[in-house]
Amino acid sequence: MEFAELIRTGQAQAELLRGPEEPPLRGTLCITGHHLLLSPGPQATPDLWLLLLRNVDSIEKRVAGDSGTITLRCKDLRVLQLDIEGVEATLDIARSIEALSSLESVITSFPFFYRPKGLRLGDAWHFHPPECYYKRVAREVLLRAGQPLTGPQKRRCSEDEDLLRAVLAGAQPGARGFIVDTRSPQAAKQARMTGGGTEAKAAYPGWKRLHRPLETGRPLQESFVRLVEACGDLEQSMDRWLNRLESCRWLSHVKETLSTACLAAQSMEQEGACVLVHGAEGTDSTLLITSLAQLILDPLSRTMAGFQELIEREWIQAGHPFQLRCAHSAFSHARPKHEAPTFLLFLDCVWQLGRQFPLSLEFGEGMLLALFDHAYASPFGTFLCNNEKERCLCEVRTRTHSLWSGLSQPKEQRKLRNPLYVPNPLAIWPSAEPQSLRLWQGLFLRGTRPPEPSEVAWEKVWQIVTDQEKTEGSQPTDSASEAGP
Amino acid sequence: MEFAELIRTGQAQAELLRGPEEPPLRGTLCITGHHLLLSPGPQATPDLWLLLLRNVDSIEKRVAGDSGTITLRCKDLRVLQLDIEGVEATLDIARSIEALSSLESVITSFPFFYRPKGLRLGDAWHFHPPECYYKRVAREVLLRAGQPLTGPQKRRCSEDEDLLRAVLAGAQPGARGFIVDTRSPQAAKQARMTGGGTEAKAAYPGWKRLHRPLETGRPLQESFVRLVEACGDLEQSMDRWLNRLESCRWLSHVKETLSTACLAAQSMEQEGACVLVHGAEGTDSTLLITSLAQLILDPLSRTMAGFQELIEREWIQAGHPFQLRCAHSAFSHARPKHEAPTFLLFLDCVWQLGRQFPLSLEFGEGMLLALFDHAYASPFGTFLCNNEKERCLCEVRTRTHSLWSGLSQPKEQRKLRNPLYVPNPLAIWPSAEPQSLRLWQGLFLRGTRPPEPSEVAWEKVWQIVTDQEKTEGSQPTDSASEAGP
Repeated sequence: MEFAELIRTGQAQAELLRGPEEPPLRGTLCITGHHLLLSPGPQATPDLWLLLLRNVDSIEKRVAGDSGTITLRCKDLRVLQLDIEGVEATLDIARSIEALSSLESVITSFPFFYRPKGLRLGDAWHFHPPECYYKRVAREVLLRAGQPLTGPQKRRCSEDEDLLRAVLAGAQPGARGFIVDTRSPQAAKQARMTGGGTEAKAAYPGWKRLHRPLETGRPLQESFVRLVEACGDLEQSMDRWLNRLESCRWLSHVKETLSTACLAAQSMEQEGACVLVHGAEGTDSTLLITSLAQLILDPLSRTMAGFQELIEREWIQAGHPFQLRCAHSAFSHARPKHEAPTFLLFLDCVWQLGRQFPLSLEFGEGMLLALFDHAYASPFGTFLCNNEKERCLCEVRTRTHSLWSGLSQPKEQRKLRNPLYVPNPLAIWPSAEPQSLRLWQGLFLRGTRPPEPSEVAWEKVWQIVTDQEKTEGSQPTDSASEAGP
Repeated sequence: MEFAELIRTGQAQAELLRGPEEPPLRGTLCITGHHLLLSPGPQATPDLWLLLLRNVDSIEKRVAGDSGTITLRCKDLRVLQLDIEGVEATLDIARSIEALSSLESVITSFPFFYRPKGLRLGDAWHFHPPECYYKRVAREVLLRAGQPLTGPQKRRCSEDEDLLRAVLAGAQPGARGFIVDTRSPQAAKQARMTGGGTEAKAAYPGWKRLHRPLETGRPLQESFVRLVEACGDLEQSMDRWLNRLESCRWLSHVKETLSTACLAAQSMEQEGACVLVHGAEGTDSTLLITSLAQLILDPLSRTMAGFQELIEREWIQAGHPFQLRCAHSAFSHARPKHEAPTFLLFLDCVWQLGRQFPLSLEFGEGMLLALFDHAYASPFGTFLCNNEKERCLCEVRTRTHSLWSGLSQPKEQRKLRNPLYVPNPLAIWPSAEPQSLRLWQGLFLRGTRPPEPSEVAWEKVWQIVTDQEKTEGSQPTDSASEAGP
């Protein structure tokens, strides 16, 4: 199939509204295989506005008289409005966007065509080999897995039993093991009917099972959709807003996730225990807990490189099915099937960590926002496909650019790094009390409010830091002054 | 009455717990007329811990075996626990604190005895004369008043009518006037039965009345008490917390106050209208609106000096009855009579402004916290008494120190000033959408959580700024290097 077949229009005159407090942009609108472009003419700044069509989550068209309006709700939660001259043009553009934004083929997606200046294919794909990590954490025993496949006959698996026995044998003398199951005891039992199950107490001596049920899948996606709906309503009372914030349960998910991650981290750090985390598949809530527990305990995972390594290892290589989970964001009218904002929930929990420990993460809110954006729609190949096997089949590593290579560009640093960072060798224990958790306004209000105040403050702090570096740079060094006459 | 009569104990050994993550302090406890002191011995740092007894809002004692525990809940929302050796000593200390913390006489209060080094009596009492302000704002017409005393017979007052006619005559040609009444139309009508009332339309041509009901008095105090109760409960679910946050209505009060202030400011700025604000007495919600409208419109009121001037003019000189309103804070078991956290509501609204415009206020959160603390219990005389008449009778200006003089000490600046401040000549329009407003955690969680993360970030930014100033100071100037060999 050729993209050209799906493009039903040449170009049209349009005005674009990008959100509150941003001036409208007038110009010529056209569509390519992967982008919507608005070219406002040679004198204008910026000279080109560009939207990756994959970023469109829902599209709404309205025509009146001899013009039309298209509202694009994006996966990154931004809302765009296009006022277009001509009814036919409006309908053609809307149909083209609809068709092109919902293509499912991976190997015709934009990352396979994106060839930015200054980046080389293959760069940064292998700079986080897991072997280095394993060497470093040889005495830190945090395991993750899928559920044991006991089934209705309560089958046992001697290899699993041997493995967990060996783990305890290799740990400190007398160390205990905790199995953190992210399902309720009922759900774990029911899983037997479909071949899954849970560890029988007798078969795993020294290991204690703790159930900390975390919602995933559809309830989580619905929570996300309802939160974004509530955030978009600017004409509600405080009572109604707080009521909706409560009933959508997003912050409850944040609280439960952080509590469970603290439990896992605490068992390791304070009891010297070995911890195994799993839910059903080991590719969703399991990863939430193992990755957050590492951020709490391991100072290296809080650096820029360490955090990228963590995401590469605990999410991408661990097989979180990004393509299925992030197929749609909060605006799509498609009923969710496999979609779930598990990765967003992780980013939100990291944001809460960063808010509670403002000096301890080397990366800032901008990094978390960028990761959210790229997980849902990206010119880079990092979040493509659902697992390693699919990525190999599609040759993602040789035919697309790595996001880590894109983010390492010097011009990106100011947006991504925390100017207040001071390495902190200790564990950082977040408070999961409801009073201490906040709505991540920088993300959830980005479609409705002008730039977050914290962004403004951030920019100013960077300016102060950069001025300081310049001043220091222009100062004569000691050796230079000693070399003077 | 002598203080000595109320002090029932000599001294006792005690351990003090000052809150989460603060180490306990052991030492000798004793009571003076105005303070509770703990002296941990010559080697300890700090060598003396001191609490103004006036700061105690409620006291709870428990004895068991041969020791006792006293829990002091302070007006500044901090909670202290004292474990004391000896049952008699515990009971004596508790009784002494109860008696001394509830003394009502102004002229025997601590400000009349406080003589700090480096400050001179009389300083800073007159550095905000209202005359300068009137000259500066001669064309800004924002008025405040009490309700017109029409009474049940609908009396008219020709002086009032002349005055408001003169205001419009002196304004731009065609300017309209708005009367913002902070009561509901029903409440304003009912006020006639007790001698009050509202402006009859026919009697005030050119003026339009707008009702924006704001709650004051008892409902506001109860809202405050319920919010602090909810903040102190660390074992609740997210649902329960959001539910209590909604039902205590504090954030609704913040929202309504900011909306009404925006309405007043908008009428002046965008319609060139004259605005008169009043409720019943003109000493509570009226002041909220006039002072916030000025912060929105007037860049000078956002400087350190301008903000102090604003509080002096719009709250202290305008007759906000601080002594009655701030007699108790959120913990007292006394049923509120005249207490109401109107001034705290103002500070919270300013905090929201500062959060939404992080560069535009010269003062920071520390200034707002200090003002809250001093309004409820202070060694300075600024917030004593209920009005100018009482302050003159007590000779407050000659016999106590001004808070403004205390806050101008160099060592206080880092806590009070905003390191990111950039003067902003424009009006700053806050969003009063519920999504944009936040719980002021730095204040309301101060009794239950370790230092706010924002305080940590703040301190780090100050460090960067100070380092930068040092670096700049140590650099050779241009002229110096030109004078070199």
